Amino acid sequence: MNPTGHAPTVAWADDAIEIVDQTKLPDALEILRLASVDAAVDAIRRLAVRGAPAIGGCGALAMVIGLDEARPSSTEQARAALDALVARIGAARPTAVNLSWAVRRVRDAAAREATPHAVRERALLEAQRIIDEDREACRLIGEYGRTELRGATTILTHCNAGRLATLGWGTALGVVYAKAAAGEPVRVFACEARPLLQGARLTTWELMEAGIDVTLVVDSAAASLLHSGTVDAVVVGADRIAANGDTANKVGTFSLALAARHAGVPFYVAAPASTFDPATPAGDAIVIEQRAADEVRGWQGRRTAPAGVAAWNPAFDVTPHEMITGFITEVGVIHPPFTALARP
Amino acid sequence: MNPTGHAPTVAWADDAIEIVDQTKLPDALEILRLASVDAAVDAIRRLAVRGAPAIGGCGALAMVIGLDEARPSSTEQARAALDALVARIGAARPTAVNLSWAVRRVRDAAAREATPHAVRERALLEAQRIIDEDREACRLIGEYGRTELRGATTILTHCNAGRLATLGWGTALGVVYAKAAAGEPVRVFACEARPLLQGARLTTWELMEAGIDVTLVVDSAAASLLHSGTVDAVVVGADRIAANGDTANKVGTFSLALAARHAGVPFYVAAPASTFDPATPAGDAIVIEQRAADEVRGWQGRRTAPAGVAAWNPAFDVTPHEMITGFITEVGVIHPPFTALARP
Repeated sequence: MNPTGHAPTVAWADDAIEIVDQTKLPDALEILRLASVDAAVDAIRRLAVRGAPAIGGCGALAMVIGLDEARPSSTEQARAALDALVARIGAARPTAVNLSWAVRRVRDAAAREATPHAVRERALLEAQRIIDEDREACRLIGEYGRTELRGATTILTHCNAGRLATLGWGTALGVVYAKAAAGEPVRVFACEARPLLQGARLTTWELMEAGIDVTLVVDSAAASLLHSGTVDAVVVGADRIAANGDTANKVGTFSLALAARHAGVPFYVAAPASTFDPATPAGDAIVIEQRAADEVRGWQGRRTAPAGVAAWNPAFDVTPHEMITGFITEVGVIHPPFTALARP
Repeated sequence: MNPTGHAPTVAWADDAIEIVDQTKLPDALEILRLASVDAAVDAIRRLAVRGAPAIGGCGALAMVIGLDEARPSSTEQARAALDALVARIGAARPTAVNLSWAVRRVRDAAAREATPHAVRERALLEAQRIIDEDREACRLIGEYGRTELRGATTILTHCNAGRLATLGWGTALGVVYAKAAAGEPVRVFACEARPLLQGARLTTWELMEAGIDVTLVVDSAAASLLHSGTVDAVVVGADRIAANGDTANKVGTFSLALAARHAGVPFYVAAPASTFDPATPAGDAIVIEQRAADEVRGWQGRRTAPAGVAAWNPAFDVTPHEMITGFITEVGVIHPPFTALARP
């Protein structure tokens, strides 16, 4: 599924997790080995691995490492360890539902086994299933998106919802890769996604690696770009989708949706079932992670603002469901309410 | 009028222009001496001096330097030099109307004089009048804005429309300074204004210098900030205001206007008469300056994106007049059409 033949974003190797260290891109492609739960939680917190499906996969594999660290001598101890790990790993980042969903899924599957060894083996099997399913979900999202967006050649996206954010070829960028793989014309405008510039650093990098035409814009230029008529569709990923369709995604997504609506450009969210959270009725119930002011005050050690200035730095915002043309998923293009959505 | 007692943004000293080098802020407050037209044009182009009124004042003074360089031996030569300088200096940046307005005003006044010496003296007098009038316009804008926005304590602004952008205490920030000077409570949220971060570097710096509460946000966080109900009013500056009220300002202003309208927050443009361009009927006739891709691809020598990625980098966008609650000027809060607006 990976059209560029690169190392997978998250993989299991020799009883540890290997990730592409996304804090180093685009300057260097480095593989980071996570051999402890602490290392995995730290990597998730500091965004060495990011993107809702990718941190779900990383968190699921971290459950296995946690069992190895706990060395349970009874099934009861193994189950208690699983519960503790669900809380510890699931708290690494609050907004993306995939993380808490993935660790609970591993816990629920493994806790049914009868020996500590079987618990550990089942945990690993379930984590690998999550990874395999996300890869397949990405493929299907790409294909459904390609069908939905036939005729659209210029796509605007935000942040990174590509192979670096998922366990396959991406969600929003999966649509782009599917078009490219089918030989259809496609080009991308990528918003840079301040403060951590996942669009500038990651989306441009992976599209250039794949040979796809990409143009970078600062986030605040997107409104005039949309107004200009250049863009055929906006496609973004998601971190949590409430039952009514309100969608938490990288801060700035809401601005894009407002500008797309004003310009009459369709606005799609591309996400697997694991990103839908029927337990959250609407966007106002989604916890938005607030991150450190230093992310806004500088860039890689260079100050961009006076030392000590206050900053308000939400990692995500919520786009109201009525601004979203459709949700591109592995079961097709769907519309809210999502209370009955079947999740694996 | 300068509430912080600092060096003026643009000043005339010993037959040269002295400016605060805004590329060095907030790390260092350095005065840059511009003793040639080339140096002045370069400073305007590379944004060492920026902000529509400030580059108007700098351009006006550069006309005097240009006459000194031309050493005309007849009044006809002096007039020809003025015409050439209008074209040369006026082209340094295309979008802000204040620059071309200011150099034409100096030319028109000075060309009426009868000797080369008188032409030069009148050019200097007119340039200094432009500076004095902008200072007074800023004061009045502040006072009219304070009256209009009584009851509003939390102001969101974009880029820098403060004392560093003008020849007085600013336009949008003039309203803030007027509130502070009157002892009224006021706090500011400042959008950082990628790519060159004039909000992060300059607005925060000058407000902190003045002891005014300021909080920095990335541009794309403004929509959720407005949606949260925290902000009472958006106030921004302008680079050119068309006859119908469509307003060119720093890229991202249009996004703010869309978000303010969605949130029901009033959206004001604060600008002196010199920023109004009755000769431009509507926003689609405003030339938007496109700047180098490198502004988007890095920050102070650090790459923020892969080398060689394409970037679309408009310096400004156009906000449609119907999204603007009112225009705060030195003659009061006004509304389009502006065809009959009296300009000095």
